[in-house]
Amino acid sequence: MNDSATTPLAFGLGVGTRDAHGNWLEIYYPHLVFQPPANTTGAIDEHFGVDAGERDADPKALARYAEALRATDVPAAEVVAALAAANRTVIAVRLDEDRAIASTAEGYLKLHLLSQRHVLPNEIDLDGIYEVLPTVAWTSEGAIAIDELPQRLLQARLSERHMEVHAVDKFPRMLNYVVPSGVRIAAASRVRLGAYLGEGTTVMQEGFVNFNAGALGPNMVEGRISQGVILGEGTDLGGSASTMGTLSGGGKIVISLGKNCLVGANAGTGIPLGDRCTIEAGLYITASTPVSLLDDKGNPVKTVKARELAGQSDLLFIRNGRTGAVECRTNKSAIALNEALHAHN
Amino acid sequence: MNDSATTPLAFGLGVGTRDAHGNWLEIYYPHLVFQPPANTTGAIDEHFGVDAGERDADPKALARYAEALRATDVPAAEVVAALAAANRTVIAVRLDEDRAIASTAEGYLKLHLLSQRHVLPNEIDLDGIYEVLPTVAWTSEGAIAIDELPQRLLQARLSERHMEVHAVDKFPRMLNYVVPSGVRIAAASRVRLGAYLGEGTTVMQEGFVNFNAGALGPNMVEGRISQGVILGEGTDLGGSASTMGTLSGGGKIVISLGKNCLVGANAGTGIPLGDRCTIEAGLYITASTPVSLLDDKGNPVKTVKARELAGQSDLLFIRNGRTGAVECRTNKSAIALNEALHAHN
Amino acid sequence: MNDSATTPLAFGLGVGTRDAHGNWLEIYYPHLVFQPPANTTGAIDEHFGVDAGERDADPKALARYAEALRATDVPAAEVVAALAAANRTVIAVRLDEDRAIASTAEGYLKLHLLSQRHVLPNEIDLDGIYEVLPTVAWTSEGAIAIDELPQRLLQARLSERHMEVHAVDKFPRMLNYVVPSGVRIAAASRVRLGAYLGEGTTVMQEGFVNFNAGALGPNMVEGRISQGVILGEGTDLGGSASTMGTLSGGGKIVISLGKNCLVGANAGTGIPLGDRCTIEAGLYITASTPVSLLDDKGNPVKTVKARELAGQSDLLFIRNGRTGAVECRTNKSAIALNEALHAHN
Repeated sequence: MNDSATTPLAFGLGVGTRDAHGNWLEIYYPHLVFQPPANTTGAIDEHFGVDAGERDADPKALARYAEALRATDVPAAEVVAALAAANRTVIAVRLDEDRAIASTAEGYLKLHLLSQRHVLPNEIDLDGIYEVLPTVAWTSEGAIAIDELPQRLLQARLSERHMEVHAVDKFPRMLNYVVPSGVRIAAASRVRLGAYLGEGTTVMQEGFVNFNAGALGPNMVEGRISQGVILGEGTDLGGSASTMGTLSGGGKIVISLGKNCLVGANAGTGIPLGDRCTIEAGLYITASTPVSLLDDKGNPVKTVKARELAGQSDLLFIRNGRTGAVECRTNKSAIALNEALHAHN
Repeated sequence: MNDSATTPLAFGLGVGTRDAHGNWLEIYYPHLVFQPPANTTGAIDEHFGVDAGERDADPKALARYAEALRATDVPAAEVVAALAAANRTVIAVRLDEDRAIASTAEGYLKLHLLSQRHVLPNEIDLDGIYEVLPTVAWTSEGAIAIDELPQRLLQARLSERHMEVHAVDKFPRMLNYVVPSGVRIAAASRVRLGAYLGEGTTVMQEGFVNFNAGALGPNMVEGRISQGVILGEGTDLGGSASTMGTLSGGGKIVISLGKNCLVGANAGTGIPLGDRCTIEAGLYITASTPVSLLDDKGNPVKTVKARELAGQSDLLFIRNGRTGAVECRTNKSAIALNEALHAHN
Repeated sequence: MNDSATTPLAFGLGVGTRDAHGNWLEIYYPHLVFQPPANTTGAIDEHFGVDAGERDADPKALARYAEALRATDVPAAEVVAALAAANRTVIAVRLDEDRAIASTAEGYLKLHLLSQRHVLPNEIDLDGIYEVLPTVAWTSEGAIAIDELPQRLLQARLSERHMEVHAVDKFPRMLNYVVPSGVRIAAASRVRLGAYLGEGTTVMQEGFVNFNAGALGPNMVEGRISQGVILGEGTDLGGSASTMGTLSGGGKIVISLGKNCLVGANAGTGIPLGDRCTIEAGLYITASTPVSLLDDKGNPVKTVKARELAGQSDLLFIRNGRTGAVECRTNKSAIALNEALHAHN
């Protein structure tokens, strides 16, 4: 066994689909280790080499690596043994450091790391993801290169075989790659690979979770979790509720929602929320919404832009049905509120 | 023929999928009778026994039951004959009374009763449904137990066969089980088994119908019908419109919408509506929303919580664009309005 | 070669699915020409006749037409050669003028014309489309007549084959028929055949595009583009944003959005917008919403119904968070605003 100078950040064995030119369209990693322990690192070094990068794996090396894993992780060993026995190209990808994504194989590996809960959203460098992921036709016959699709549709028709095109997109559905434990997802098309869904999370039909976004669990997700956004434990996102992402309209503020928040149906937020916050159904708070802040007696203290309330806990946002004004009710005295606002500035 | 002490509430013959331990994952009932007439009851008693419960059906009993049905219901007889001829386990389920659900087979049977329009939402006891329905991976290869899914995904990949995971959920899509007559459903993933959709109902891409929820028909459904909610004849639910269910946020009030209502796009209601009510696009009425009630002259009569208007007819809810106040316009005089409100209290 | 009195408006060669009675359920046109040049018109005349209408194509005629196309359009020639070689009924449809749709074949042909970008929404006569398109079950085994579906579902079950019903609808998903270049569509179920999507358009999971509706590209579509609605270049439609169509609630005004507009998440419009307009997240503008118009100094000029602002450019619509009033901010002086309003009247 060689000594490795470096512990891999991650190592994956994948199988995937290539286009007619041999370029990867997508890669599925049934075996993926993150910051592996010393013995696994040693086995990786020995059978796949100590250099970071991607290479086709030799079936014999796969078989020997499977044996090495068997001592500590029987299920993983069996997955690798199945890869070794299959008559398919297996790609071995080793990342030694977290940097911008340089290849399709690396991109898919990092998306798997998120969905397999090895890393949280915003914890890993996803720069370059749009460049490395090709736009793919996701069909009932698997991934197909866009320029090959019309011919494939015609062939299927002429042989009286139905081919369904589910999407034309850079990101596939998570559930075709990763099925996290303790999760319900009512419509697979609405959770992208790269979503992070913690134990106990339900994503209803109207829910959506982008890549590099998610919910720590348990959560009820009936609204849209935009790229970069995280929901804390116990937080509910109501039907069609919107969270502003950094990709469109949300600017540079990363939105997160703390624990036990409730964002009502058809509501939305453009600011991060602390714990135990509520936004009533139908109310959209943007960073620049003027909000009348009420103290624990229900008296208005001052009017602030919503962004000044970013990240604070125990807030209840409503639109007053009599006056149309956006109000924020708190459980703090006027004095405590002023202190909190100044602390925040 | 035996005499039966009891008329069955419902009797179904189903085929389904079991997990590796022999537990049912899902059951499809191509034959289902509700409160059957005497001759059908007699045939059920004779061929499947007089006791409530579930049992594997003997192919010979199925064939004889098919013959008995042929006198009164040829299509049903042919379905049962096909079940008798198939080399598959057929489960016979007999419910004699309506009580909490005790098994997966009973759960699926009651969901079929709803979608086949034998019973309306809230008319049948669904207690226990979450406990008896296993969370299932719904795939292009049928229902798969969650703990068997990773292995199945890997096998499919290694044999170069594409497997699509459509959902991981307790409830399947209705259209794979029941196709009600006179209905259009633009996206099958958004109507759960157990939805009730009356003749003439269209559920557009943005529509959603939960189990034990539905529309009496004809209706245009572009919004979300939550568990327990029913839409009356002629009522339109606009795009992304929300109805608060009893499961989340709606408390104990069962929401229903009467006839010929219009809930605008991106609007919502947390109170039941009578007939001919309108909520303008973008306005969300919760039970505690203060509403300025206007009489038939457009003069404000008083401000009430929306819950006081629950179930009343001929109301038009808007948010005044000048003042931001939520208003309810009626065709009643101030005197009639006050009487109606007091009657309601 | 015959001389043709008329240049065809469009000519298509299609293959499709028929029900048990021989009626077309759907037709896919892999070859479709719009206002063809003289040499193509000549070839159509010669091999398929000069009369408008639809007929089964003779395989020899198809082969000769393929040869004629080869001189000017090799890809098209190869598609037609494949049709000629296949052992399938090929339908040839020739439209000479644009009039109400008279058959299923014509209906599918016009929907293809839109999705293949030969015509823009509202440019072609779609009268009769609902009458000619049958409601079809769209399944993993292709199009199935509604009355044949229960039997097919049962057969699939009894032969232990999973059949997925994706929809029961008149309109199929565009991507099973037409895949426009330079487009991403994250959920195929939400873009109907007949949608027009220009180069560079992304339709996210929450986006929806009806038939005879679309986006000129490039566009980001996360909301709903209703029938008849067009988005100009550079315009973004936020998550769950709604555009009122002419089919439901929108009356006779055709809604279009100009260039570089932004309709925020959960917002909506019932009026057409000019260029560079913004509607803030969560605000729904209907034609009758009273809007306080502010000049370039931020001073209120007058309050108008939103319909009076239809089609104007450089408007920013918000709901004032302090007063609840809907406001429209402009970059025009009070004088210019009054002129613009009078000009519009």
